Amino acid sequence: MKLPTRRAFLATGATGLGGVAAGAAASALLLDDGSPATPAADRVTSLGTASVAAPFPHQAGISVPAQQQGHGTVAAFDLVPGASPAQLKALMQAWTAAIADLTAGRAPAGDPDTTALGSGPCSLTITVGFGPSLFGKAGLDAARRPPQLAPLPVFGTEKLDPARGDGDLGVVLAADDALVVFHALRTLTRAAAGTAKPRWVMSGFSRAPGSSPDPDATGRNLMGQLDGTNNPAPAQPDFASKVYVAPDDATAWMRGGSYLVFRRIRMLLTSWDAQTTAEQERVIGRRKDTGAPLSGGTEHTPVNLAGQNPDGSLAIRGDAHIRLAAAAGNGGAAMLRRGLSYDDGLTADGEPDAGLLFLAWQADPGHGFIPVQQRLTRNMDALNRFTTHETSALFAMVPAAPPGGYLGQGLLGA
Amino acid sequence: MKLPTRRAFLATGATGLGGVAAGAAASALLLDDGSPATPAADRVTSLGTASVAAPFPHQAGISVPAQQQGHGTVAAFDLVPGASPAQLKALMQAWTAAIADLTAGRAPAGDPDTTALGSGPCSLTITVGFGPSLFGKAGLDAARRPPQLAPLPVFGTEKLDPARGDGDLGVVLAADDALVVFHALRTLTRAAAGTAKPRWVMSGFSRAPGSSPDPDATGRNLMGQLDGTNNPAPAQPDFASKVYVAPDDATAWMRGGSYLVFRRIRMLLTSWDAQTTAEQERVIGRRKDTGAPLSGGTEHTPVNLAGQNPDGSLAIRGDAHIRLAAAAGNGGAAMLRRGLSYDDGLTADGEPDAGLLFLAWQADPGHGFIPVQQRLTRNMDALNRFTTHETSALFAMVPAAPPGGYLGQGLLGA
Repeated sequence: MKLPTRRAFLATGATGLGGVAAGAAASALLLDDGSPATPAADRVTSLGTASVAAPFPHQAGISVPAQQQGHGTVAAFDLVPGASPAQLKALMQAWTAAIADLTAGRAPAGDPDTTALGSGPCSLTITVGFGPSLFGKAGLDAARRPPQLAPLPVFGTEKLDPARGDGDLGVVLAADDALVVFHALRTLTRAAAGTAKPRWVMSGFSRAPGSSPDPDATGRNLMGQLDGTNNPAPAQPDFASKVYVAPDDATAWMRGGSYLVFRRIRMLLTSWDAQTTAEQERVIGRRKDTGAPLSGGTEHTPVNLAGQNPDGSLAIRGDAHIRLAAAAGNGGAAMLRRGLSYDDGLTADGEPDAGLLFLAWQADPGHGFIPVQQRLTRNMDALNRFTTHETSALFAMVPAAPPGGYLGQGLLGA
Repeated sequence: MKLPTRRAFLATGATGLGGVAAGAAASALLLDDGSPATPAADRVTSLGTASVAAPFPHQAGISVPAQQQGHGTVAAFDLVPGASPAQLKALMQAWTAAIADLTAGRAPAGDPDTTALGSGPCSLTITVGFGPSLFGKAGLDAARRPPQLAPLPVFGTEKLDPARGDGDLGVVLAADDALVVFHALRTLTRAAAGTAKPRWVMSGFSRAPGSSPDPDATGRNLMGQLDGTNNPAPAQPDFASKVYVAPDDATAWMRGGSYLVFRRIRMLLTSWDAQTTAEQERVIGRRKDTGAPLSGGTEHTPVNLAGQNPDGSLAIRGDAHIRLAAAAGNGGAAMLRRGLSYDDGLTADGEPDAGLLFLAWQADPGHGFIPVQQRLTRNMDALNRFTTHETSALFAMVPAAPPGGYLGQGLLGA
């Protein structure tokens, strides 16, 4: 098999607009003779060269890339007291320019930070939005806050840490290399100096590209479940209306944007591990190995909520997570979940400080996360005993910048 | 170009002994027509199938794989009070068996945890050792502690958190997929139940495979420096004597093992960023972009400590990090550094909680980390102003298990 030389690698580094510009395609070559190393030129992969363009009018990082990147960081910034409208506008202009450079694998002009020097774009996406608390600051009339951006209601089972939730600005960064993500957030932080500063930062991971023989396979979370089986798929005709704000929405500056609900959900893994696999499957309503619903079939078989066991009991228990979360019981509520696993070591009492950075994208949280979470709480979702919602945030993730313009221009440019 | 089908991928999944059994070789294919996705069979890569065998008599994870994996976790366990010699021996036997399964990509027998189901071995390595505090517990005579495992001396500039340092047992796990690392540590933790429990767990990252066009390029740390330029190289004739305990060492059970010094070193990145690039380069003694010493040349040019600037001043300042760390000034002290960057978000005062999980492997810390760190401390290494050593640990990382035997058998099997 002919493999590309380093020269060929560099020549393919530039990618244009057009959705996912560089699909990561690679071939396997194993050394059966036990050779200790592969010649350098043969070990090159395309991972670093892949870049992801914004699928206008949407920002990248919501429904593209199709295969979620291996690393992600979610960060919130607060404006410094007294920040002016001109400062906020200048910040969004600076971030828009920096994002164009960073996601193309270029160092922003004057960037003294060499952390990611030598790394390609690595499918970096950076997605930006506004929190409820921004309205009323920097000259923004509180009345301009969209109804979809009203602070989330209180849910009965959550134990939220306010210091690690909310925020005036929200940013989601993801790439296939953690150093590239880190460098990008440092670059945005420097660009914000004097106008906004980080409020909280959390990082997590998804399956690395190439880790699984089937790149389209649903990923697993730290409880071992396939997570995301029922996600809306871009090929479905109602995908855009579920995920993106409609072109005729009353809030003109959010048309083509998406509302992000972020929750840090700790998994109580010691309690979880103490259950039998059969009990874990009853809690979720799906098989752990294949992801098939307990009503039968395979992973993508539609769930039959009326299905019965031979003894006449419900195949999917009354408090099973997938029964309570099902769209059918929530007025058709839907959201695109693209979560990250996190592992922050041990808690003060020696338990795993690990779980899910839950990210759900939707056209309207009132027809997405909110009714689902209310039903899960009210009806005592069996999964509640094994999870704790520790932090929460909501952001209006704006549409892509208009040509020659900047992110948030529809709101800030008037 | 012909790309392998999924069938070909699966067929190559089995690898035998022999150093790095599967080199990750891959080819780049870019889609210039903006096609939204690559056919699934064409996106398969070899990342997941790579497995790393122990380079007998050494454990894997020290000098192999040659290219460090993208993710790593360092964990310490403490024995439960009153753990018996038989329990400790059974634990090491269970870990040895689990490590053989996990690093080959197999689920250990009876493992109910599906977290990594569907992922290949992803170059997983798990390296195990004993801390100073183990001696005196589980029937181990305190006098059997090797002289090289004496607790590290106190260094003037450190600010150590004892709760997050030390430990009876030390484990280093690394792979190219974070989920695989997480699953492996959970598996070891379950196997230890009743005998030992986690004391602290920290995770970090290195450059992802394929992120850089040159896989042999030195990696960068979060300050932007190339880090590891002067590492001993396996091709050097004295590599083994620097890194691995000698075949005639007085402590027979450590022959072929290595001593690991672990330090969590926080980088004071806001202060660092406030320096000019020229000042940052004087602090280190190397150029930030190329890694070349300020005495001239390119990255791998030997450092000329006597080199002068045109004005007669030293090219590498008296307090420059590379001057004080140089082996020439430390009695030839050498160690193999394979660190990980970490990003744990923000500290309580809003600063980056990020830096380096420093891992240094050596035949004897008394001729490695200890004299170097003493000199860096005493002579006011300029880098000290931008770093804080927050935690510390030392472990005797044992040799590979003998054929049919278990890790630590030389000590515990008598």
